Amino acid sequence: MIIVLKPEATPKEIKHIEDKIRELGLKPMLSVGKERTIIGVIGEEDKARIQPFEAFPGVESVMPIQKPYKFVSREFKKEDSVVKIVPGVEVGGEKIVVMAGPCTVENRERLLAIAELVKKSGAKVLRGGAFKPRTSPYSFQGLKDKGMKFLYEAKKKVGLPIVTELMDPRDLPLFLKYADIIQIGARNMQNFELLKEVGKTKKPVLLKRGMASTIKDFLLSAEYVVSEGNPNCILCERGIRTFEDTTRFTLDISAVPVIKKLSHLPVIIDPSHCSGIWDYVAPLAKAAIAVGADGLLIEVHNDPEKALCDGPQALKPNKFDALMHELRQIAAVIGRTL
Amino acid sequence: MIIVLKPEATPKEIKHIEDKIRELGLKPMLSVGKERTIIGVIGEEDKARIQPFEAFPGVESVMPIQKPYKFVSREFKKEDSVVKIVPGVEVGGEKIVVMAGPCTVENRERLLAIAELVKKSGAKVLRGGAFKPRTSPYSFQGLKDKGMKFLYEAKKKVGLPIVTELMDPRDLPLFLKYADIIQIGARNMQNFELLKEVGKTKKPVLLKRGMASTIKDFLLSAEYVVSEGNPNCILCERGIRTFEDTTRFTLDISAVPVIKKLSHLPVIIDPSHCSGIWDYVAPLAKAAIAVGADGLLIEVHNDPEKALCDGPQALKPNKFDALMHELRQIAAVIGRTL
Amino acid sequence: MIIVLKPEATPKEIKHIEDKIRELGLKPMLSVGKERTIIGVIGEEDKARIQPFEAFPGVESVMPIQKPYKFVSREFKKEDSVVKIVPGVEVGGEKIVVMAGPCTVENRERLLAIAELVKKSGAKVLRGGAFKPRTSPYSFQGLKDKGMKFLYEAKKKVGLPIVTELMDPRDLPLFLKYADIIQIGARNMQNFELLKEVGKTKKPVLLKRGMASTIKDFLLSAEYVVSEGNPNCILCERGIRTFEDTTRFTLDISAVPVIKKLSHLPVIIDPSHCSGIWDYVAPLAKAAIAVGADGLLIEVHNDPEKALCDGPQALKPNKFDALMHELRQIAAVIGRTL
Amino acid sequence: MIIVLKPEATPKEIKHIEDKIRELGLKPMLSVGKERTIIGVIGEEDKARIQPFEAFPGVESVMPIQKPYKFVSREFKKEDSVVKIVPGVEVGGEKIVVMAGPCTVENRERLLAIAELVKKSGAKVLRGGAFKPRTSPYSFQGLKDKGMKFLYEAKKKVGLPIVTELMDPRDLPLFLKYADIIQIGARNMQNFELLKEVGKTKKPVLLKRGMASTIKDFLLSAEYVVSEGNPNCILCERGIRTFEDTTRFTLDISAVPVIKKLSHLPVIIDPSHCSGIWDYVAPLAKAAIAVGADGLLIEVHNDPEKALCDGPQALKPNKFDALMHELRQIAAVIGRTL
Repeated sequence: MIIVLKPEATPKEIKHIEDKIRELGLKPMLSVGKERTIIGVIGEEDKARIQPFEAFPGVESVMPIQKPYKFVSREFKKEDSVVKIVPGVEVGGEKIVVMAGPCTVENRERLLAIAELVKKSGAKVLRGGAFKPRTSPYSFQGLKDKGMKFLYEAKKKVGLPIVTELMDPRDLPLFLKYADIIQIGARNMQNFELLKEVGKTKKPVLLKRGMASTIKDFLLSAEYVVSEGNPNCILCERGIRTFEDTTRFTLDISAVPVIKKLSHLPVIIDPSHCSGIWDYVAPLAKAAIAVGADGLLIEVHNDPEKALCDGPQALKPNKFDALMHELRQIAAVIGRTL
Repeated sequence: MIIVLKPEATPKEIKHIEDKIRELGLKPMLSVGKERTIIGVIGEEDKARIQPFEAFPGVESVMPIQKPYKFVSREFKKEDSVVKIVPGVEVGGEKIVVMAGPCTVENRERLLAIAELVKKSGAKVLRGGAFKPRTSPYSFQGLKDKGMKFLYEAKKKVGLPIVTELMDPRDLPLFLKYADIIQIGARNMQNFELLKEVGKTKKPVLLKRGMASTIKDFLLSAEYVVSEGNPNCILCERGIRTFEDTTRFTLDISAVPVIKKLSHLPVIIDPSHCSGIWDYVAPLAKAAIAVGADGLLIEVHNDPEKALCDGPQALKPNKFDALMHELRQIAAVIGRTL
Repeated sequence: MIIVLKPEATPKEIKHIEDKIRELGLKPMLSVGKERTIIGVIGEEDKARIQPFEAFPGVESVMPIQKPYKFVSREFKKEDSVVKIVPGVEVGGEKIVVMAGPCTVENRERLLAIAELVKKSGAKVLRGGAFKPRTSPYSFQGLKDKGMKFLYEAKKKVGLPIVTELMDPRDLPLFLKYADIIQIGARNMQNFELLKEVGKTKKPVLLKRGMASTIKDFLLSAEYVVSEGNPNCILCERGIRTFEDTTRFTLDISAVPVIKKLSHLPVIIDPSHCSGIWDYVAPLAKAAIAVGADGLLIEVHNDPEKALCDGPQALKPNKFDALMHELRQIAAVIGRTL
Repeated sequence: MIIVLKPEATPKEIKHIEDKIRELGLKPMLSVGKERTIIGVIGEEDKARIQPFEAFPGVESVMPIQKPYKFVSREFKKEDSVVKIVPGVEVGGEKIVVMAGPCTVENRERLLAIAELVKKSGAKVLRGGAFKPRTSPYSFQGLKDKGMKFLYEAKKKVGLPIVTELMDPRDLPLFLKYADIIQIGARNMQNFELLKEVGKTKKPVLLKRGMASTIKDFLLSAEYVVSEGNPNCILCERGIRTFEDTTRFTLDISAVPVIKKLSHLPVIIDPSHCSGIWDYVAPLAKAAIAVGADGLLIEVHNDPEKALCDGPQALKPNKFDALMHELRQIAAVIGRTL
């Protein structure tokens, strides 16, 4: 940590800061510059963070040097983490994993039909929401428990593990029973109580980036999960809020190489939610593979006109099938399979 | 709702859309323009929203006309809502309410001392966090149940009602017992399960705007609370995420007149969290009163250097006292008291 | 255009609006809804835009239906535009064009050396700045006229056409003489006088997106160029300003498919400026090809440590060469060459 | 400047960096931390900025300590700058200055009428655009030279100095002759050639903040003007681009106290352009005075329905008059006059 002092900081103020640093078991290191004096804090930065040095007299600003997260950092673990879902399906390895299915579980028959189709096209995980976080209280809120059972049935019948979103810690037992991957949605990325709960299990977690979260915040939320004891955390970039309004969110595609540099956790991209419009899904999915994502989360629906949620962003099965074909070739160029 | 068709939309596609509109019990109204044909949907827009018209062949875009929220809208209720906290304290009326106190409840003595001081300066509600949503799992997470009891004690001793943040639906009984206003933090503004739970009570709710939420999203979250049966909802603008980095968030001060136009709910401003730096708190608080806010949420600490959370943004009691004096005069200019 | 009326709009106010619409030679079409009345304006929307209907009594909001740009729109011209640079080099066709070179022209020898290297790796245009728009007045401002001559010499010697940035209308004659593509930088995207000047020539223009520009604004700036008579306009996405700070700007990769849908103009991507860090350039360049960009603008420097501008984001020639190899394979997958 | 090294930086890499620092006439100061080594650079940071240390092997990041601007900084000049416009009118002193008038000069009569009205209400400067930067090439572009003459005539007749926008360096002589304050619009805030030109004169400059500019960028643009020799620079906050769409831009009201801390230049606020809607102008103007702005730029029009530009955001003269009355009282509370 670097503490930058105001030009007018007095020797007494400086001494007071140095004393506090020593009290914390750390070492202050003064550096008198031409315009400003700075104090380097030598030792574990975590300890120094407890003290609000910005509030001390004479302090202009405080700059952290060390990363605020630990277990999720690339420094803590050099090699890429691979999250095992079920035998034969793992995220973060050489093989890129496509998770596909409807936005929402609408009924038993449609779910089974879509599951069959996406499996045939090469998806390795079935997505589908039973509990739906909707901006408006008047939008369809999901089939809840019944939806979970349909997902489980689809899993048994079609043979794809399932990813589905948890919104309330009280529903966790249900998810531990039926889900293979617990999704934490963008709107709950900083629902810390929920993060702690899934962190106490070993169930794979798919953590979506909050729409206003920096990558640092995102990794700190993952740290909540991992530091509680669950290393099986997959990150998902799904677009951030910007002023641009031709797409629902702005896909921050750079997040993939940035996170790969900072963290060992796998990163996937959701091209359906970020754009909100189905005909942008294919180009964005191709870009996601090219940029180095470990997987994709894609909405597929066999009758988008009848979808109870986000119909306009769902791919029809034939388009999804054609896309998978192209994705396989791009994966090959960058030395991966799909 | 207006459905804008693609220039190349066929008569068959248009008929298909018109049929769907009629099926929903609504009336389509075709308007053939020079470059584009549009279809107006006459009737309750809620019904039309169920159908994903953007996914229909021939459709270019869909534009809502009616507001997506209802009970919180100014159209539903013309006069300003006034939320009663305890006898003599209400938010949304002529009297501006200042809520002040430490970011976090740190210990019994400090809380009592700060409570006495803010009361003396004119605060009408005591703020203080027992359960703290922290970006990092390594930051102080609050005294939890013990903190709640200290708050309750301060309330009894000093005579100020308390506002404190709820993060987990399982803690609601504790809050119903001890809190006077339940705060839902910015990070949980779209934690819809939590919103529904507080909506089922009659306890006043202070709903903070999410850092990436549009005002429309914000009002829809309030609609979750109010449509469940709890009309006692106070809105709080606390800054949004932008590219500007000299302040922690960018206070969207225009939100006050915008919300006042769209909704009858009271709106307050939190000048401490948006800036993150204590010496910006006073000018922003003055601007908040001038722009028409119904109240303020201000962090006050008697020893910011020792604060366990957000010390740099806390006002010292003497500065708070001086500020209250100025705020009273600005309130008078715009015809209110404080 | 749709004019949405306030619920309380009076018949007199409505008649006043209808009269104004007719005065403009347009046709009003009233549609009385359940909650609101709306007026459709039939005819050329340009005429209606002159009148500030939002300022009329009784009006709540005004929603445009037609696109505000014309010559750059896909509706005006269905097929993709191809901009010819020199014989054998054109942007917007099947062949993807890579423009590469140093950020700034630093001296004759280095420019020639880099030009030779990028040509050997397959770049088709040489980039390099002689006039540099720098955020700080204390940063190196470019070699100006001398730099232009070095660029011209490199063109002659190495045989690559050159793209370089124009900042001042008074320098246009120099650019018409020496440059093959005139770049208008992000900071001048709404320098409308400059746009009009280059619009009066036939020289190819590379228009970079402003860091706070919506795609609509971007296309309107291109309309300034094209409506003045110069159809040779290439658009360049180079990142927008967001709250994320691990990259200098956030590459809005979705802009490529969005612009391709709305406009016939070619679109390229600059992966160097958006990230600001060289090791993100390769993954972003691959994503750009995969998403459908018509070209790339990449900074290459043979000694980044000595670069006078933006050294940290420049690729070394061997990395650039390896990247070109990968890009060629991705181009092949999506049916293009490079 | 602080150079943070990668954990794996080698002694050879460290020595190479230290050598470079010494070559620049600066002093490296090594600090070996627990996880990372950092190098402090002692001496004038400007010198160190020339070298792209981020591009050096072994370097993780570079953190500036000193401010990148100089003449506009509060450290360079402790006391507030006061910019004299004409005898009796100065910006930055105890007296708050309101500049008002139509968005665009439309014709002689209307301009004179509005000038008389705003003067009577207490405006001290007349605003009005003769050259208009319009997002669309099809919008009214201003009366140009003729508009300048009307402004000059209004100045002579009514006795108010005028502020009007310059867009092209070739028009500067006209502005030096007729204008009292040269406005540089938000879209040209980083049109560095234009900034240098007005910096070479002594004419007061009103520099508007770019819609995607950080406060640091804004002050660096002001540094372009001041470092060329013109100290008469007034800054104007007019809203930044964010995701919120109920207002045209988001007024960053915190910019006033932030800039006041960092710089000695006067700061005014434009409440008309940031909101885009007339009924938000009054509350935002009151907030601007309360937060400490040195002035306001307000659009007033006697017939907004007929305005050729931005009619919806113009105040009618009677509303402006009533607002001035309230502003005077708020100014008094904070110890200023208006």
